[in-house]
Amino acid sequence: MQLAYSTAELIAIVSPREVRGTATPEVKGIAALSAAEEGDLSFLGNAKYRPELAATRASVVLVPADEETRPGAEQVFLLVENPSAALAQVCARIEQQLWPKPVPGVHPSAVVDPAAQVAASATVGPLCVVGAGAVIGERVILEAQVHIGREARVGDDCWLMPGAVVATGCELHARVKLHSGVVVGSDGFGFEFVEGRHTKVPQVGNVVVESDVEIGANSTIDRARFSRTVIGEGTKIDNLVQVAHNVVVGKHCLLCAQAGIAGSTTVEDFVVLGGQVGLGGHITIGKGAKLGGQTGVSGNVEPGAYLVGTPGLPYMLERRLGVLQKRLPELFKRVDALAAEIEGLKKASAS
Amino acid sequence: MQLAYSTAELIAIVSPREVRGTATPEVKGIAALSAAEEGDLSFLGNAKYRPELAATRASVVLVPADEETRPGAEQVFLLVENPSAALAQVCARIEQQLWPKPVPGVHPSAVVDPAAQVAASATVGPLCVVGAGAVIGERVILEAQVHIGREARVGDDCWLMPGAVVATGCELHARVKLHSGVVVGSDGFGFEFVEGRHTKVPQVGNVVVESDVEIGANSTIDRARFSRTVIGEGTKIDNLVQVAHNVVVGKHCLLCAQAGIAGSTTVEDFVVLGGQVGLGGHITIGKGAKLGGQTGVSGNVEPGAYLVGTPGLPYMLERRLGVLQKRLPELFKRVDALAAEIEGLKKASAS
Amino acid sequence: MQLAYSTAELIAIVSPREVRGTATPEVKGIAALSAAEEGDLSFLGNAKYRPELAATRASVVLVPADEETRPGAEQVFLLVENPSAALAQVCARIEQQLWPKPVPGVHPSAVVDPAAQVAASATVGPLCVVGAGAVIGERVILEAQVHIGREARVGDDCWLMPGAVVATGCELHARVKLHSGVVVGSDGFGFEFVEGRHTKVPQVGNVVVESDVEIGANSTIDRARFSRTVIGEGTKIDNLVQVAHNVVVGKHCLLCAQAGIAGSTTVEDFVVLGGQVGLGGHITIGKGAKLGGQTGVSGNVEPGAYLVGTPGLPYMLERRLGVLQKRLPELFKRVDALAAEIEGLKKASAS
Repeated sequence: MQLAYSTAELIAIVSPREVRGTATPEVKGIAALSAAEEGDLSFLGNAKYRPELAATRASVVLVPADEETRPGAEQVFLLVENPSAALAQVCARIEQQLWPKPVPGVHPSAVVDPAAQVAASATVGPLCVVGAGAVIGERVILEAQVHIGREARVGDDCWLMPGAVVATGCELHARVKLHSGVVVGSDGFGFEFVEGRHTKVPQVGNVVVESDVEIGANSTIDRARFSRTVIGEGTKIDNLVQVAHNVVVGKHCLLCAQAGIAGSTTVEDFVVLGGQVGLGGHITIGKGAKLGGQTGVSGNVEPGAYLVGTPGLPYMLERRLGVLQKRLPELFKRVDALAAEIEGLKKASAS
Repeated sequence: MQLAYSTAELIAIVSPREVRGTATPEVKGIAALSAAEEGDLSFLGNAKYRPELAATRASVVLVPADEETRPGAEQVFLLVENPSAALAQVCARIEQQLWPKPVPGVHPSAVVDPAAQVAASATVGPLCVVGAGAVIGERVILEAQVHIGREARVGDDCWLMPGAVVATGCELHARVKLHSGVVVGSDGFGFEFVEGRHTKVPQVGNVVVESDVEIGANSTIDRARFSRTVIGEGTKIDNLVQVAHNVVVGKHCLLCAQAGIAGSTTVEDFVVLGGQVGLGGHITIGKGAKLGGQTGVSGNVEPGAYLVGTPGLPYMLERRLGVLQKRLPELFKRVDALAAEIEGLKKASAS
Repeated sequence: MQLAYSTAELIAIVSPREVRGTATPEVKGIAALSAAEEGDLSFLGNAKYRPELAATRASVVLVPADEETRPGAEQVFLLVENPSAALAQVCARIEQQLWPKPVPGVHPSAVVDPAAQVAASATVGPLCVVGAGAVIGERVILEAQVHIGREARVGDDCWLMPGAVVATGCELHARVKLHSGVVVGSDGFGFEFVEGRHTKVPQVGNVVVESDVEIGANSTIDRARFSRTVIGEGTKIDNLVQVAHNVVVGKHCLLCAQAGIAGSTTVEDFVVLGGQVGLGGHITIGKGAKLGGQTGVSGNVEPGAYLVGTPGLPYMLERRLGVLQKRLPELFKRVDALAAEIEGLKKASAS
């Protein structure tokens, strides 16, 4: 994706307090100060990178309003109140270019059941399937090759990337974003062992994804055995995450990549699960708790706790134990030495 | 998915021994006793939840035949021999509503190679692809956007959810269920390092999935380098599980979400792998062994063993070591104290 | 997939120095010596399997040129310089049968935007989508149901399996192979916590996959926040691997199944990540480092290091600590015994 913004266009986007330098380069990319090449836009978003400013090869740099460094001959500095926010303004403009708002309507190659309801303002892209009884809300975008099952509901302003699947009877509230390969509503993993075989327990609940949730590529959310699996409002889920049946994830949580949550567990609001975290079934993770990457937990976690390790322990304890474990060779030797000294004392006292 | 069952319909489904209460509510959902709202069906499946019965807001409750509690004014209790089994009967009825048996035939938008064989009783849904030489058995359901590669075989009564992929030459026996995004027959991960580059080792075997296997969303099963990767009869695989090339999984195993099995490993019958378990390559996991969540194993495991941790240790040993590890700070202090006492004794004996 | 090769055909493929035995069986499968049945081809690729040669039931066996064992009455041995290489020749032939080179052209069911460029020698299979401005190079194969987003570039001789996704603006260089369900270019997981909610940080960079990379089924590679996420030339990625935004993976690395790399981390050339390895964000893994399965790392790793465990420690140290940890029960008892002896000495010296 080649960007192409003139200096004048960038100035129009970020409205700088001051333009320092007379060059008028064209910007074709964005990079950190140290990695930037000629033709890149960069920014000084954090004072710790200030030493890199003088040497950067970026053509345009967003700097704080009180910055005193002078640009090079081919450079221009745009002085702004908040360089990170200004960069975000530029990125927002690029976003519109990357993902232009598609024209509403149903692509002729899509297969939409006559008994589905699709809002006139929605876009159903090429080779999508929308099942009977499904409801597609206002301004929804189904990019391409998306599957919406029977009786599923996709709320207003949802945006589903190519290949996302919302299975029969599941619900997305407003502004939900599903990345490619997401499966909402696969069966829960429930079996009873009867006469030497695993017999399926019907999984007839659904999944409810509340508003402003985003779910990353190839993540899977199982439908409930009965009632519902819930992803709470504003929660963000990374790629390849597994959420089992009857799990309730609260509002505004972050679930990092490859985390997994076993059945019927409750994750309260504002919880953060690091990458590859594993939660056992039928437990509760208290509000605001944080679990470091790869942590494994099979019991309840107190609100606000910060755990790491398997089984998860409080961060400071785990660190301390880690230090002591590395000293085990020394400890074993020391105990040997003490035993020898005791032996010596015993001999001395016996003599 | 809105349920709607009258009390009379529920009575027809579960054939209770006794109907206690005169209310005739309509049921619109299913929930546990404590979570149920008006309009819900609930059940007393386990004696430990009995204290919740009197207070439940559920409109209809399935209770054991010897239950003595009286329903509230707006409630009705259905007395049955086994409330869990009765609930399963209701769920089985709901299943038929969620996933009605589709009409046999090939959807006009599907692309079926003329050299494929599709049974007249099979359903090939919208936008499916079936390659040359593929064989689709009796009563198979390919939901939508499914891919069946060249020369692949899908046995009688298999059911493939939207977006599942069965690659060239792979075989599903009877009654196999694949959830969305499953990939059966991706290449094994085999490379030789030749002159500074990883050179691909051809992967020309296939995958054989035996009867009554179910595979969860976005799980991946690699084809063998040669011969076959096997998933044994009746084994159930959860979401996001990885099975590498030439692995042989026995019959009636359970592989929980995000577990991974490296190449050429044998998992014998009735093994249970917890979530996120990792098995190394070229090892054997003995019959009936259980590995707890996140366990990592790189050597053989005895039949019937129950291991946890990385590297996996017997459950009781791992627990004991876990307790002792938490006592390490105390142990280090204690050894310091003993050293001081010995020093004292040495001085005393020297004086 | 049923093979069928006559002895004469096999001889033509591997050009043996000598044909030992007079049988002329037809070969229908390939298997290891110990697993082979009548009708199978096998090979003695490693001297340690030599004891299995006399007893194998394989009909045709590739053996080293200096092998002296005689075949059974129904067997034939083909004496070759390198049995493994000879087997690879046979497998290469089978590969052509499994995946015949498709006829160039765009399948009528594919949806290719008029503003996309597709080379005349490329194959766009059934139900693929190619967006506006996308460029599909010479001899590219898009198998079926593949998605190529707007402005994406697919280099010469790339091969994308059914259901692979290359999102808007991402680039594949030459000879890249993507397995089913791969997502290249999902959004990075970037949010800022503003007024009690996670607010999306625009992800407007792309992914660049360099030449000769192979990516396994259902793996996900996120686009950069800005600039690019890079997978270096010749790197091979297994199934269900997660690569976060702005990660730079070097050349000729191996990333085994279910490994995950957090944002902005650099993995230098020739690194090997075992299965389920987790790397934290903003770190560097030095050239040629190896991390064992399930290892977790949150700091930089030296070039050439071999780490295991969470947190990752040098292999020999981790093994030694593992041995000592199992001796903790003994150590605790021993310290108790020493304490008792000291108590005895104190009493003795006091008396």
